[in-house]
Amino acid sequence: VKDGMTISFHHAFRNGDVLLNRVVDLCAEFRIKNLRLFPSAMFPCHEPVIEHIKKGVVNRIEGSMNGPVGEAVSHGIMDYPGVLRSHGNRYRTVEAGEVHIDVAFIAAPTADEYGNANGIYGPTPCGPLIYSKVDSLYADRVIVVTNNLVDYPAFPMTISQTDVDHVVIEDNIGDTKGILSGTLRITRSPRRLKIARTVVDVIRASGCFKDGFNFQAGAGGISLAVTKYLGEAMEEEDIVGGFGMGGGTKYLVDILKKGRVRCLLEGQCFDEEAIKSLRENPRHVIVDPSFYANYNSRGNAIYKEDVAFLGATEVDTKFNVNVNTHSDGLLLHGIGGHQDVASGAKICIITAPLLRDRIPVIVKDVTTVTAPGETIDVVVTDVGIAVNPRRKDLLEKLKAADLDLRDIKELQEEAYDIAGEPEKPKTTDKIIAVIQYRDGSVIDIVKEVKE
Amino acid sequence: VKDGMTISFHHAFRNGDVLLNRVVDLCAEFRIKNLRLFPSAMFPCHEPVIEHIKKGVVNRIEGSMNGPVGEAVSHGIMDYPGVLRSHGNRYRTVEAGEVHIDVAFIAAPTADEYGNANGIYGPTPCGPLIYSKVDSLYADRVIVVTNNLVDYPAFPMTISQTDVDHVVIEDNIGDTKGILSGTLRITRSPRRLKIARTVVDVIRASGCFKDGFNFQAGAGGISLAVTKYLGEAMEEEDIVGGFGMGGGTKYLVDILKKGRVRCLLEGQCFDEEAIKSLRENPRHVIVDPSFYANYNSRGNAIYKEDVAFLGATEVDTKFNVNVNTHSDGLLLHGIGGHQDVASGAKICIITAPLLRDRIPVIVKDVTTVTAPGETIDVVVTDVGIAVNPRRKDLLEKLKAADLDLRDIKELQEEAYDIAGEPEKPKTTDKIIAVIQYRDGSVIDIVKEVKE
Repeated sequence: VKDGMTISFHHAFRNGDVLLNRVVDLCAEFRIKNLRLFPSAMFPCHEPVIEHIKKGVVNRIEGSMNGPVGEAVSHGIMDYPGVLRSHGNRYRTVEAGEVHIDVAFIAAPTADEYGNANGIYGPTPCGPLIYSKVDSLYADRVIVVTNNLVDYPAFPMTISQTDVDHVVIEDNIGDTKGILSGTLRITRSPRRLKIARTVVDVIRASGCFKDGFNFQAGAGGISLAVTKYLGEAMEEEDIVGGFGMGGGTKYLVDILKKGRVRCLLEGQCFDEEAIKSLRENPRHVIVDPSFYANYNSRGNAIYKEDVAFLGATEVDTKFNVNVNTHSDGLLLHGIGGHQDVASGAKICIITAPLLRDRIPVIVKDVTTVTAPGETIDVVVTDVGIAVNPRRKDLLEKLKAADLDLRDIKELQEEAYDIAGEPEKPKTTDKIIAVIQYRDGSVIDIVKEVKE
Repeated sequence: VKDGMTISFHHAFRNGDVLLNRVVDLCAEFRIKNLRLFPSAMFPCHEPVIEHIKKGVVNRIEGSMNGPVGEAVSHGIMDYPGVLRSHGNRYRTVEAGEVHIDVAFIAAPTADEYGNANGIYGPTPCGPLIYSKVDSLYADRVIVVTNNLVDYPAFPMTISQTDVDHVVIEDNIGDTKGILSGTLRITRSPRRLKIARTVVDVIRASGCFKDGFNFQAGAGGISLAVTKYLGEAMEEEDIVGGFGMGGGTKYLVDILKKGRVRCLLEGQCFDEEAIKSLRENPRHVIVDPSFYANYNSRGNAIYKEDVAFLGATEVDTKFNVNVNTHSDGLLLHGIGGHQDVASGAKICIITAPLLRDRIPVIVKDVTTVTAPGETIDVVVTDVGIAVNPRRKDLLEKLKAADLDLRDIKELQEEAYDIAGEPEKPKTTDKIIAVIQYRDGSVIDIVKEVKE
C-alpha cells in the first residue's frame, strides 16, 4: 500500500468490523498518506478513521458512512467529497473501471492457504462475504485475512484462489456481535407494528400476492415485522412464493423452512440464524451484488421482485425518498440496496411513521434524494397509506380493498401541523458527499453542515 | 452469427451432444461461411461437421477433436490448422483475449427465463456445465439453450443471468446416454487391472499416501480401476484424504460417500452417479477450469494434487506423453486436463500397457508431445514400472517397497522386440493442428497424414 492508493473492505461484520481500522492504523504507522477508502460500508465502530482523515492518512471515502464518520465528514473534515453508491452500483463501478482498487482486504471467517474463502464457517461467521467478490476480481492485489485457516480446499469458495494473492492470519478479524446492530431488531412500538400490518394488507390487496410471488425484505425494525407478518399471511392463504430476498434474517429463514418460498437469495446476513441456514439449506443461495442489482449486467434479481418493503428517513410529497441524511443535514446512513430495489421491484412500499422523535418524516422536500419518487409506489404510515398517483392501477386495487388511503400532501400537512415545519439544514457551499444513482449518475449532493 | 465469427460450445454431453451440429447446420442453411468453432471438445457425434468444413461453413476449429473430425482434419480438409488446448489453457486463452468468442451457445439442462442455468437438474442432466463459464463471461453474445425452462430463479446458478443475452427453448439439447462413452467403463482386461493394482502399490509406496492427501483420477478404463482400488486401499489403511478430483464417476462418489475424502472437486461428470451426487452432496463441489488449472490465475487446484494417474496413447523413453495422435499420425483425441495435471501434481503416474492392439505404447519418440517428460514421474505398465530418473527420491522409495522397477528404455525395447518398431507416420508438410502447452506456447504440431 502506497500514498494515494485505493483500498477496499467488505462490511459483513457491520459494527463488529476490526480489519478496516487495523489496516488504516498500520498505514498511518507507515506514514502512508492520501488513501482512498472503498469499503462496501462503514459503521460507528469506524470512528477512529476520523482522526486519520484529519491527519491526511485518508483523504477520500467512497462507500456508505453510517454514523460518526458520516457526521464528521458532514462537518467538512475531508478535502474530497465522499461518494455514496448502492450495492449494485458499487459492483458496476468497479466492473466498469470507474474505481480501480489497488489493494482489497477481505476479512474471511474461513480460508485456506490458497485464499479460497467463505464467511459461513469458522468461529466467527459473518455471512456470504460476497460483497468482496468484485474486489477480488478486479483489485490489483487481493489479501485474505483470516482467523480460521483450514485444510485445502475451503468451500464453498465464495472468494476463489484464482483471485487471491496473499493470505494473512490474524487472531481477530471481527466481532460477530456487531452484525446484529440496533436497526436489525423487530420493532416493539405499537404504531410501527401497525405500519407493518398495514404493509401486509397492501400486499394482499395489490394483486401480486399469489403463488410464485417474489419479495424483497428491508432491514429496519418495521421491515422485520412486515417479514414476520407476511410469512404468517402466506401460511394463512397457502401461498408458495418464488424467492425471498434479504439481508437474511431469522424471519426470512422461517418462511423458507416452512416451504413458503422456493428459495432465499442472499448477499448479506443480519443474524446468526441466516448464516446457519446458509450452511444447512441448499435452497438458501448466495448471490453477488451484480446478480442482485448491477445496472450494467444482463439481468438483475430486483427486476423479478413483485414487491419490496423498505424504510426511509424522509419521504416527500413527490414520493422522493431520503435514507442518507437527517433533517439537520447530517450524512448518517448509506444507500444499501435502496435505489436498486425501488427501481426494480414492481411495487416498492416505503414504511414510515409520520413523525420520528417529533420530527416530520413525510416532508415537502426531502433533504437528500436517494431514490427518485417515480420509483416509489406506496408509502405506508401509521396514519394512512399514500399511493403514488402514477400507479392508478394500484390505487384502484387498494381502494377496492377499503384500505385507509390518504393523499401524501395531506400526510405531510398533518405532520407539519403536529410538529411544525422542520428547519432547513444550515449548510455552507462545500460539497461533502455525492449521492450516485444506480447507473453511476449523480442524483444529489450533500453539503457541509455549519457547526 | 455472421461470416468469420467464432462460436463456442461446451462438451458436457460428450458423444450425446446435439447443439453444435444443430447450430452449424443452421449456419449452413443461412449460408454463413468461415466460422471458427471453439468447443471445449468434439466427439464422434460431430461427424456431420466434416461436410461443413468441406463446404467452407467452418474453416477453423480450436478445441479437442475426438474421432472422425480429428481424422478428417488429419487428412487436410481444413485450411487453417486446428488448435488444441488443455482445459486450463482454454480458460486462460479466453481470459487473456487470445480467442474472442462472438457467440457462446450453452446447452442447459435447466434454465430460467433470465438465463440462470445449471446442468445437474432437469430431465437430461449433463453435469456441472462449468466449461461454459468463461464463454459466458467473455463472449459478446451468450445464448442459453434449454429443454427445461423452470420458474425463476434456477439454482445453482452455474451460468449467471448477469452474463446471458438470450434463452432459447429446444426439445432436444443432448442425449445423456452419450456421456458414458466407451473409455469411461472400467477395464475388464486382467493385464490392465494388474496395471491398476500396481498404480495403487506405487501410491502406497510413494510416501504421499496419508491423511489429507489429494488426488486426481483420470478417465480411461484403467484409471477407473485405479480409483476403485485406491478407495479400497484408503479404507484398509484408514486414510482420509483432502480432495479427490475427476471427471466425476461413481468410483469417486463412493470414496466421498465413505468419508474417505473431505470433498470432491469437479468440472465435469462422466456418469449419472456423479451428477446425482452433485445434487445431493454439498461436499461435491463444482469448480471451473480456472480454479482447476488456469496458468494465469493466482492458484490452481492441480498444484495441490499429491498424486494423479492418467492414461496415454504413447510414452517415450524421455517420458514425453502423447494423448493426441495414434502411431499412424492421425489426430484422434483431445488434451483434456492432461498437461495441466501432469505439470501440477507432485507425482504424475501414467498408466500404459506395453502394447495396445499389438502396437507399442512405450516408444523411442512419441508421435506428438502432449505433456513434456519433465512433468511425468512414473510410468506403470503391465510388465513393470519406470520411474523418471529426475525423481531419485521416488525411485528410492519404490525400490524400498520392492516394486518391479524397470528402465524405460528396457520397456521400449521389449515392446519393439514383440511387435517390431512402429513405422513413422507418412505425412506431408502441411500443418493440420497445433498442440498448445498450458501456458499458450506451442509444444508440438501435427502434420497431414498421406492417404
